[in-house]
Order: sequence, then structure tokens, then C-alpha cells
Amino acid sequence: MMEYINGGVTAAKGFKASAAMAGIKYKGRTDMALVYSEKDAVSAGTFTTNVVKAAPVKRDIKVLEENECVRAVVLNSGIANACTGSVGDANNELMASYIAECLGVKTDQVLTCSTGVIGYQLPLEPLKKGAVLLKDALGDSLEKGHEAACAIMTTDTISKEAAVEFELSGKKVRIGGMSKGSGMIHPDMATMLGVVTTDAAISKEMLTKAVREDVIDSFNMISVDRDTSTNDSLIILANGLAGNDIIDSEGEEFETFKKALSMVTVKLAKMMAGDGEGATKLFTTKVINAADKNDARKLAKSVITSNLVKAAVFGCDANWGRIVCALGYSKVDFDPDNIDLYIEDDKNKILLFTNGMAADYSEEEATRILGAKEVIATVDMKSGSENATAYGCDLTYDYVKINGDYRS
Amino acid sequence: MMEYINGGVTAAKGFKASAAMAGIKYKGRTDMALVYSEKDAVSAGTFTTNVVKAAPVKRDIKVLEENECVRAVVLNSGIANACTGSVGDANNELMASYIAECLGVKTDQVLTCSTGVIGYQLPLEPLKKGAVLLKDALGDSLEKGHEAACAIMTTDTISKEAAVEFELSGKKVRIGGMSKGSGMIHPDMATMLGVVTTDAAISKEMLTKAVREDVIDSFNMISVDRDTSTNDSLIILANGLAGNDIIDSEGEEFETFKKALSMVTVKLAKMMAGDGEGATKLFTTKVINAADKNDARKLAKSVITSNLVKAAVFGCDANWGRIVCALGYSKVDFDPDNIDLYIEDDKNKILLFTNGMAADYSEEEATRILGAKEVIATVDMKSGSENATAYGCDLTYDYVKINGDYRS
Repeated sequence: MMEYINGGVTAAKGFKASAAMAGIKYKGRTDMALVYSEKDAVSAGTFTTNVVKAAPVKRDIKVLEENECVRAVVLNSGIANACTGSVGDANNELMASYIAECLGVKTDQVLTCSTGVIGYQLPLEPLKKGAVLLKDALGDSLEKGHEAACAIMTTDTISKEAAVEFELSGKKVRIGGMSKGSGMIHPDMATMLGVVTTDAAISKEMLTKAVREDVIDSFNMISVDRDTSTNDSLIILANGLAGNDIIDSEGEEFETFKKALSMVTVKLAKMMAGDGEGATKLFTTKVINAADKNDARKLAKSVITSNLVKAAVFGCDANWGRIVCALGYSKVDFDPDNIDLYIEDDKNKILLFTNGMAADYSEEEATRILGAKEVIATVDMKSGSENATAYGCDLTYDYVKINGDYRS
Repeated sequence: MMEYINGGVTAAKGFKASAAMAGIKYKGRTDMALVYSEKDAVSAGTFTTNVVKAAPVKRDIKVLEENECVRAVVLNSGIANACTGSVGDANNELMASYIAECLGVKTDQVLTCSTGVIGYQLPLEPLKKGAVLLKDALGDSLEKGHEAACAIMTTDTISKEAAVEFELSGKKVRIGGMSKGSGMIHPDMATMLGVVTTDAAISKEMLTKAVREDVIDSFNMISVDRDTSTNDSLIILANGLAGNDIIDSEGEEFETFKKALSMVTVKLAKMMAGDGEGATKLFTTKVINAADKNDARKLAKSVITSNLVKAAVFGCDANWGRIVCALGYSKVDFDPDNIDLYIEDDKNKILLFTNGMAADYSEEEATRILGAKEVIATVDMKSGSENATAYGCDLTYDYVKINGDYRS
């Protein structure tokens, strides 16, 4: 038994959440969120590989290194607190301490995440006011989790939540999460912002291992624009309230946990890709039967990050030459005369390219398939048994519009 | 004395060119071009690193390996002859042999280049007819060179030619070239299509060395969309008619030749970047005072290939955070608190970012600068003395429009 259930960060036992209109940058909408664990939660995270790291990323990495457990994650949208110098670091520390004070926990038990414009300083009064509002609004309903997911949106058009229920040593366990991200999405060992909570009992070491392995095939396999952000953060909290035997080594239970975690993160990742800035559809590339797993990932990502492929997908043009071209410059060696390329929607699947040449397909049928809300390109490498899937979106006029003048 | 002169592939002594309306795919415009050397020309080239190589690329590599000299390059637009299997290889061989027959030279003295849609087969009758027309139209005027440059355009809006005159061992020498390229531009050891001719006397070994070193800082430093094409080819022919002492080793004369070659290729490269599909402006990034030359190149290219930066440049939004972000994910390590970032047009230069934070600049002034036809971002790494420059363009609605339905 392992299945999706409704909910997000409040799905698992002992987690509360809230949102607040703090007035950090946006007007008339929520812009701060809090995720709180009733008891100490073992925590782990992965963060951007960008050399330029936002203040909260630098601090979170340190807090997670120095502390086994945390109690809360506070997040804001509107301002990324990146490229803000030592003032930005100090403001970020204050953001954590305001929350710590309200919750009656230590400052180093509070993680922080920011998303929005780079280079602006966080305003302190709104942060302070927001902390009180967040504390007062805390609740464990699914609605509270949803409100938190909405508060961290920037150019996102839908909020992203996912939750899974499964069993570990006879106990019912849940993992739930939320994320945001629409532009500057090309995670590299992390995503934009993601918070996952679970009531599973698991050691910090195994939780860290689980999340690091998980992102390779979830958040690290999506891209909206190849721009790896300064703020990418995925944080996971595990409070053990499910009462399962603690997972402190590899084995069947750890694999079960990882599988459930993957269900949550892949669902969140797909939601982020499909809601890419200006996107009209989710564009997935599956590479199958490759000789090497990592090569399969590189090939799949090369296709979903190609501007030319993405523009053709937007225009419903079955320009398979661009897909083959993108496979070709992925830095993976293969024989172009020995691969098959298909496209499919939820109903039909057609062969576009085989034996190094165009297959005999109907352009009309191909255009119809490309008109779907979810389009999958499948590349059969015919050289092994490794598979990988990457998630992206189309490149549209609205992407240019949104990013031509994001700050105003 | 080393200066730009008018002209392109016919600028150097002993080179003729022509264009023809062969009707390969386009109607009512020229779509084949020929560059011919009156005597044997030492030849070299660099080609795409894409695993998927077009038929002409595969053949040219072989011809250049097996022959010291060639006599002609025939080019067509409309169809790329890539992903066309063994039929495509045979058609390409025929394209060379039709020209060889008309010119009375051997087939392996004729190089071929194709550009256009991937996956379509070249039609033989137009190729055959085109060969005769090209032969009959050959001439050594600048106009003939210009006609050839126009015939190889696809989505290009301007033709690209450049020529330089200089001296070697007391003799007047010229290097002239043409290129095309507007989309699927992210050359990797080559460009889309480029043909450079010179009357310099130079050995094949030194010519090969010159062109391989040259592209690193010319064609390989431009990008329109990060898509490395299947057809990238840069071919250089040297017929020795200038009468200079042959360059057959490194030294002052070789350096002079390389400097002149660079003037031609960098000018062509900049024209290609500025004429990127849908582009409204040339966007250049100069990285100065870096510790390592290759790092400087990586940093500069990371900025000009960022969709987010390119969209902001289109919108005249001085969103320097995206530039700093793109530097940060370039895989080059540096201290973000110790770099300076400027933008400039031909009149003004302003500091946007310093000491890890926004500088005190006027948004109005920044927006005005970004409105220019040529915008330069300069990044001072303050850690050494190596420089590199990369050339790109903005990302616009028209890029999406052009590529949403390129084939129809």
C-alpha cells in the first residue's frame, strides 16, 4: 500500500503550517509561510550548486551541519535575499530569530528560505509583523498546508503540493511536501524552494542519504530555462511521530521510504515543470534502453532544455530533427542510425525517427499529439537497459513577456 | 597595416563566387552558392562536435584529411541534409560531383555545405541544374561574393561578409569570408556555415592550426540559443597568390596571419550573434582580469546564453541579479563579493554591482543604455589578467514565433 493522498506539508502527523500577508514586496496577497513541527524533527536538505548563494542558503547549510534536528522552516516570496552582502546575512538571521522568539525555540532550530528578486534587501518590519501573524495562524489542517504553498508562489500560476501514505514496520506513515518554482529553474542538486515533511522515524544520516539520492531523478531532472538559481533549496523534516521502527541503515524499509519520497518529489517536480513561466504544456522526455544511467539522464535533459525543441513544442511542430540534434550535442556518444524516437500523448504514440531517417508518419497526427497538455518524447537508445525521464515545458511568447520586465 | 576592406570570399586574389536559384526548397530566391579557387588552395576546416553530423560534414572531414588542396566549396540553403541516412550521403556526394564535372576538377577537390531543415532529402534535379547555373555565373567581383553570401541565408536577416588587407613578407595579402547563421547557434569548435578565403601562402599544417586556434575566441564565443547544430562548418582556403614567403612554421608572420584571420572571423561572429533569430540587439559580455583564460570564456558564455538575462536585455530591464546568477552557475569558482559588473553602450558606462551588492546607479540611466543596438556587460573578476569576450543577442517574441513553426 503506497498511494497519493490529498495534502502537502501538513499531511504528516505533528506538522502545522500557516501563511501571512506581511507586505514584504507584494501587495494584497500572502508572502510569508511557516512550517512547524510539534517536536524535534530530524532534518536534511540539498541546495543550489550556484557559486552565488543566497543568504538563507548559506545559513541553512550551516544550520543543518551543526544541528541534528530543527523545529521550523520560515519562507518568504517577493525578495530572494541573494547578492545582498553582509546586510542580507544579518537580515536573514533576524528572520529566523523573529520566528524562533514567537515559537519559543532556538534560532538555530529555524531554517529560512527566500524567493523573488535578486539584490533587494528584506524589510525588517514586515518580517517581524509576519512572524507574529504566522505564529497565530498555525494549524494542522490540509487547508493550512495549502495556504503555505500559495504564500511562496512568485510567477507560479498554481501551487504545488503532494502527499503519499504508506506503511513502515506496520505503522501508517505519511510524506507530504510543497514547492514553488516557475522561472530560473534548472536545479542542480536542489530545486527552487521545496519543503517536505514526514512523520517517519529515520536517522539524520539516512534522511540525508535519501534526499540526496532522490533529487537526482526528481528535481534535478526538470528545467524551465537552464538557469540554476541562487536560492534552490529542498528541505526535509522527519519527526518520527508515525511510530515506525527507526530507519537507521539501508535495507527494505529505507527503499520503501525512498520510493514514497520519490512519489512526492517527482509529482512536485512535474508540477513545477508544467507550470514553467509562460508554459502551455508539460513536455517530458523519456530515454529508455541506454547503456548508462547517467548518459540517459544527460540525453533526456538535453532535449527538454533545448530552446529550439521547446519552441517547436509550443508551435505543435513535429520538428524531430531538433530533438535528434539536442541528443547529439548532449556530450553522450551514440549511433544516430540506431535509435528510435516516438512522441505520445495520453492516447496515441507514433514513431517519428528510425534508422537514421524520418519514419513514415502523419504530420497531422503528430501535430494533434503535440497539441495535448502533456506531451512525451520517448527515445529508445537500443543499447542497454537504463532509463531516465526529464521534465520541461514549452518556450512561449509569455516566457519572454514575463522575463522581459519581471521586476516592475 | 592591417585594416578592414569591403568584400567577402572574393576579396582575395584568385577566388571567384556565384549564386543560383536552384529551387531546392525556397521559391523566388537564390539557394545555392559556389566559391572557386583558380588554382589549388590549401584547405582546413573545423566542424560541429554534435554526435549527429550532417552528410556534408562527414564528407568534408574525410576530404580534408585525405587531400592537401581543394578547388571549390558548394553550399545550399533550405535543406540541411542531416538525419538523412545513406541516401543523404549519396545525394551529398552527387552534389559535389555535379560541381566537379562543371568545373572540370576532381570530386574530392570539392567541399560541400548544407543548411536548412533537418530530415529532408536534397532533390537531385535542382542540384544538377544549380551546378550549371553556378558555373556559368562565376566571377571575381565583390558583388559575386555578396550574392554567394545571400544565397546561404536561412532565417538570417542580413548577409555576413568581412575582409581584411595586410602585409606578409612585403606582399599585400587579403583574407575574406562569409558566413550564415541565426538560429541553432551555439558553435562548439565550429560555426554554422562559414567560408574564408585568402591569397596568403601558408602550409596546410599551419592553416589548420590557425583556424583551430582562431575559432576558440571567435565562432565558439557566440550563442543564439545554446543549440549546437548538426551542420556547423568553417572552411578556409588559401591559394598562395599573394606571393608572400610561405608560412610553414610558427613565428611573427604566423601571428600576423592569425591576427588578420581573427579580424575577419570575429566580425562575422558578431554579425551572426547580432542577427540571431528574432534579436533586436547585439549583447556582448566581456570578462576581464580573470585568473584563467578558459574560466573567463566560460563566465562570458554563461551570461550571454542565459534565457533570463537575454529576456531582461530585450525588456531593457537592468536585472543584474540574473547576470550574477549566470556567472554563478558557470562552473567557475569565484568570490561573488569581489567582482564588479558594468553595462555600457557606445556612450556611457555604469557600475551595477560591487562588493556583493547593488551599486548606487540610476535605473533610468541603465534602461537607456539597455535600449542601445549594442549593449556590453563587463565583469571585472579582479583576480588576474585574462580576458574573454562572448557575443549573443536578446530573447524576443520573434524568436519564439520563428521557431514555433520553422518548417512551414
